Amino acid sequence: MDGLHKGWFTEFSPDDLEKINGSDSDSKQLKSDGQEMGGAWPGQAFSLQVKKTLFHEKSKYQDVLVFESTTYGNVLVLDGIIQATERDEFSYQEMLAHLPLFAHPNPKRVLIIGGGDGGILREVLKHEQVEKVTMCEIDEMVIEVAKKYLPGMSCGFNDPKLDLYCGDGFEFLKNHKNEFDVIITDSSDPVGPAESLFGQSYYELLRDALNDDGILSSQGESVWLHLNLIAHLIKFNRQIFPTVNYGQSIVSTYPSGSMGYLICAKNANRDVTVPSREVSPSIQSQLRFYNSEVHRAAFVLPQFVKNALNQ
Amino acid sequence: MDGLHKGWFTEFSPDDLEKINGSDSDSKQLKSDGQEMGGAWPGQAFSLQVKKTLFHEKSKYQDVLVFESTTYGNVLVLDGIIQATERDEFSYQEMLAHLPLFAHPNPKRVLIIGGGDGGILREVLKHEQVEKVTMCEIDEMVIEVAKKYLPGMSCGFNDPKLDLYCGDGFEFLKNHKNEFDVIITDSSDPVGPAESLFGQSYYELLRDALNDDGILSSQGESVWLHLNLIAHLIKFNRQIFPTVNYGQSIVSTYPSGSMGYLICAKNANRDVTVPSREVSPSIQSQLRFYNSEVHRAAFVLPQFVKNALNQ
Repeated sequence: MDGLHKGWFTEFSPDDLEKINGSDSDSKQLKSDGQEMGGAWPGQAFSLQVKKTLFHEKSKYQDVLVFESTTYGNVLVLDGIIQATERDEFSYQEMLAHLPLFAHPNPKRVLIIGGGDGGILREVLKHEQVEKVTMCEIDEMVIEVAKKYLPGMSCGFNDPKLDLYCGDGFEFLKNHKNEFDVIITDSSDPVGPAESLFGQSYYELLRDALNDDGILSSQGESVWLHLNLIAHLIKFNRQIFPTVNYGQSIVSTYPSGSMGYLICAKNANRDVTVPSREVSPSIQSQLRFYNSEVHRAAFVLPQFVKNALNQ
Repeated sequence: MDGLHKGWFTEFSPDDLEKINGSDSDSKQLKSDGQEMGGAWPGQAFSLQVKKTLFHEKSKYQDVLVFESTTYGNVLVLDGIIQATERDEFSYQEMLAHLPLFAHPNPKRVLIIGGGDGGILREVLKHEQVEKVTMCEIDEMVIEVAKKYLPGMSCGFNDPKLDLYCGDGFEFLKNHKNEFDVIITDSSDPVGPAESLFGQSYYELLRDALNDDGILSSQGESVWLHLNLIAHLIKFNRQIFPTVNYGQSIVSTYPSGSMGYLICAKNANRDVTVPSREVSPSIQSQLRFYNSEVHRAAFVLPQFVKNALNQ
């Protein structure tokens, strides 16, 4: 059973899928150092109706599925987990990209780790001052299926500002120091190929790859599911960065309907919870989710989250 | 098929469930006056794992189900739609109740239409200045199952400040004029017994039942699913109330993970998007979602919603 059943795709939590399939081969990846890790949401599942399966193969790293849904457009699924639907991807892509980009006064060099569907790249290229975008995606198959089946997301892959590397983000960072104004980690959950992107040593490499006024933005899971993991990420990042903030937005097809964004800055005086620049009318007209007020409001957290994160 | 299947409860959109069951008896209720109506989210479904079915009967008005889930506590389901889970109900109950109650400088008399699970009543009673709460719920069976299976929500039903009526909210309002400081409509979707609670004549009755500085709060569906209905509700309410605002919060087990709140005031000078009163430490310590910053941020809308609602 892989989630495709009777005309519907069902996204189970990886641990529930193991139980349904009677295998526990990967369950050790779900727990680490006593922390509840992301990538698990036992006891709940989300389904989309499938019109047509467009692509389904195993890459070197993961199971890659693209299907046409009846009401959410084309849908990208990696290892059984929905990564993006054409209907609501703009919320995640815009927030993960524009929170750090508008918090930065003048972002010229940007690095994207992951982001193979191209959605983050599309958003970064909306900023005219960006001179060069470097992207490091481990799985070339994701880029290829995005080019073919997700044209609205992958429209930036031919841009002359792009330097594209296919390889491991962790290894890439070891050779790049003080180079980027903004780094965006657009990863899947910490189960499978993205596992190393949630550890302390990864964030230390990110800090070193940023310029002195550099800002980092990372996929930060959901406060409804992974509050312990989020508290853990924030705690160790406060040892690495002088400025650490957590925001969130609604992304309706992600588990529990929300996604968080961990935004860190190397400059202690940089307040990432407010934009540093005005959103020009020409950019605003291209945005469906983000605006300056949404930027500020993203960092206002429900009381139970404030309590848990000591904010 | 009623959503309970192989140890899981699946919430289908009512129109999809009709197709699955081969019946179209209620489909006419889903469309009205060319408006996309709430209560439909075709092509997507949400499932919770069932530990034990606690109650399942048909009342005079609807199918009433309560089950114990494996990870969301006890769950109340009406006509196949999840109304509340013990794990995340606080977001909806606190926001629907405290947005109007804290926007009002001194709410003494409060009316709840619907709200049979008791969650809104519990929140209203946290305000010391409230002298009397009137509640009008059409379905006595919902109150009875809440008392038995949802004790954390139904804890206010024995409070001496409560006047409880079992009957139709629409009819109740016809006999009550200029009486309430705050009215809260805690209804299910506009399919079934709550259908009349989404029409213009209902809102005219609400206005007439409010005092001159009265504030109304209504369950306002999701911007990800029902933007046309929401635009329609706002448009006709601007003919009825001088102040009309729309806010939202994440409620992880509602379709698309969010719920909206339509907040209207009879006083043109009342800005409901900011609290009129401080949240005392004794109330704040009882709240898990709401705080003053959350109040303000709830009314900051994503750009696509602003565009659609002309806000």
